[in-house]
Amino acid sequence: MNTKSRFKPVKQNQKVFRASDPLQAVLQWGVNFMMNELSQVERPTLLLPVHFKAYSKTKIHNHQFNTSDLPMKFKFKEYCPIVLVDLRERFGVDADQYLYSLAGAEPIPVEANGKSGASFYMTHDKRFIVKSMSKIEVDLMHNILPLYHTYIVETSARTLLPQYVGMYRITVDNVETYLLVQRNVFSATHEVQEKYDLKGSTVQRSADGEEIAKGGATLKDNDLRTRNRKLYLGNDIKEQLIATLERDTAFLAKLKLMDYSFLVGIHRTSKGEEPIDQDVDVYSLPSSSEEHDEVYFVAIIDVLTVYGAKKKAAHTAKTMKHGVHAEISTVHPEHYRSRFLEFINTIVE
Amino acid sequence: MNTKSRFKPVKQNQKVFRASDPLQAVLQWGVNFMMNELSQVERPTLLLPVHFKAYSKTKIHNHQFNTSDLPMKFKFKEYCPIVLVDLRERFGVDADQYLYSLAGAEPIPVEANGKSGASFYMTHDKRFIVKSMSKIEVDLMHNILPLYHTYIVETSARTLLPQYVGMYRITVDNVETYLLVQRNVFSATHEVQEKYDLKGSTVQRSADGEEIAKGGATLKDNDLRTRNRKLYLGNDIKEQLIATLERDTAFLAKLKLMDYSFLVGIHRTSKGEEPIDQDVDVYSLPSSSEEHDEVYFVAIIDVLTVYGAKKKAAHTAKTMKHGVHAEISTVHPEHYRSRFLEFINTIVE
Repeated sequence: MNTKSRFKPVKQNQKVFRASDPLQAVLQWGVNFMMNELSQVERPTLLLPVHFKAYSKTKIHNHQFNTSDLPMKFKFKEYCPIVLVDLRERFGVDADQYLYSLAGAEPIPVEANGKSGASFYMTHDKRFIVKSMSKIEVDLMHNILPLYHTYIVETSARTLLPQYVGMYRITVDNVETYLLVQRNVFSATHEVQEKYDLKGSTVQRSADGEEIAKGGATLKDNDLRTRNRKLYLGNDIKEQLIATLERDTAFLAKLKLMDYSFLVGIHRTSKGEEPIDQDVDVYSLPSSSEEHDEVYFVAIIDVLTVYGAKKKAAHTAKTMKHGVHAEISTVHPEHYRSRFLEFINTIVE
Repeated sequence: MNTKSRFKPVKQNQKVFRASDPLQAVLQWGVNFMMNELSQVERPTLLLPVHFKAYSKTKIHNHQFNTSDLPMKFKFKEYCPIVLVDLRERFGVDADQYLYSLAGAEPIPVEANGKSGASFYMTHDKRFIVKSMSKIEVDLMHNILPLYHTYIVETSARTLLPQYVGMYRITVDNVETYLLVQRNVFSATHEVQEKYDLKGSTVQRSADGEEIAKGGATLKDNDLRTRNRKLYLGNDIKEQLIATLERDTAFLAKLKLMDYSFLVGIHRTSKGEEPIDQDVDVYSLPSSSEEHDEVYFVAIIDVLTVYGAKKKAAHTAKTMKHGVHAEISTVHPEHYRSRFLEFINTIVE
């Protein structure tokens, strides 16, 4: 053999899981494909403006080949691949882990958020959320990504903002689906018994009675007020939390983003259970109260609404089950922010 | 981690070599890509007619991504991928070895055959020949592949026909290039000091005087006659060789294929050199003569000329440096075959 050749390509010897849903199968194929491509690409020393406009498009047409698991024709596009590699690293997401999470087994469908009409999946290992986006949200992501990336660098990724780790377009049967992958706020190992989606508003901020009766519903501001629910963090952690939220929401307000939520999950600790691994469950905060043996998972979610563009974006979403309430959409981002922070301040002790 | 998921996708951790020539770079990319795809595909128990019509097409468009080594846009098509996997196995070509040969390092350009205008490459490890084809030859390959495959199965691959192991189309800058990969007749380790391309004809069957003077020329029928060159195989091996050639050429004549050559390479054994590994150099035959301490590499090559279609095919080839001599193209395949066999019979002892 030629000893001069330094590189030996490696054949993949294990199978990529193929989901039964064509969209999921193509997502798994595409993530696996792109992770292999990325392993071959030289990383730039510095991210440049061009990397925020980059993409990689692949179009497959198989005839009598490999069609038992995949559609005969499909397209896969990754947006800003080098930027997302960089973000994954900054968020401590290992490439092999990411590939395993996204392509290792069938994802878990999550009940969609009624308002946005977006579809949700959790990866099989519950580490990441895969959410469909509108084209408008894809454009918005491209607009905010350079500043978002700078913010992640400046804060050393110590933020409660969504951790974006993948952005894709999948085309099956000529239908384009845009997907955004972000870290799951909740834990794969420690179940959440109560969860809240909080905005600091009171209008239309109660969970549906039927939903609550069924159990597992995401409760809202008014439900929390009614129950007089608090998060018991203690002064030190509360101070850090509020400081982080102030910085994060200032960043969002600068981008004129609003209508985001504070997602809260509460895990009641059982005796003898494994402690939380904070490197994995990065959004977890321990209770400081002896009466409340709990762990909280908290983060800011659903940040992709621009002041003024909300109605348009909401209309673009494929399914629009409910109208958008006027009260929220006319609030200014700075006003939204202060009301949001004020409310969180009242619920944390 | 979810212990239910049996499959763990594997990220490729080593680099695929990227040739400086875009065509070669895409070939290496494509072979690597398809070998990964093939490792994911269920193999059918039986090859069916549909597998001989199958293909896999990939179209890449990268924007500001991965363009230092690869064209921004290119297409890669593999023909009959499952059939070729099967042929590689029957020819004892290991998948990892094939990938390493095709994609492990820069290929070696080989001086093109003047008549066909085809371009030739040897893989960096000299195990395979990559040769450009015309579209007509691609169609012909599709026509003969089912019978060729059956023949390989029936003979347990004990044949001196070309061992076809890959068939691709590459599109760069909207130019389509068809490539056929076959096993190299000669050895990667044991140099050939004399080589002959023999057809059993006498007309225009002398190597160019200048070429001979330069050294390393491929000599022809008349040169062999002039030198009174013989292959000293001994009765047993001669008998086997002739039997194999009779069977192989009968197969070719049945397909109306003609104008093929008997390629002969002669390696003069040096004292103390490593012996030939017959599992690697499958076309090698030892000399039986004590006076001639040689190894012969012999095979039938250039079989893709159909009786009657020759002129058309020759015209289609991109560069046609010389005219096609009438004497050859009007010979009937059965006549061509008997003259071919008769001639070889006279040169083997």
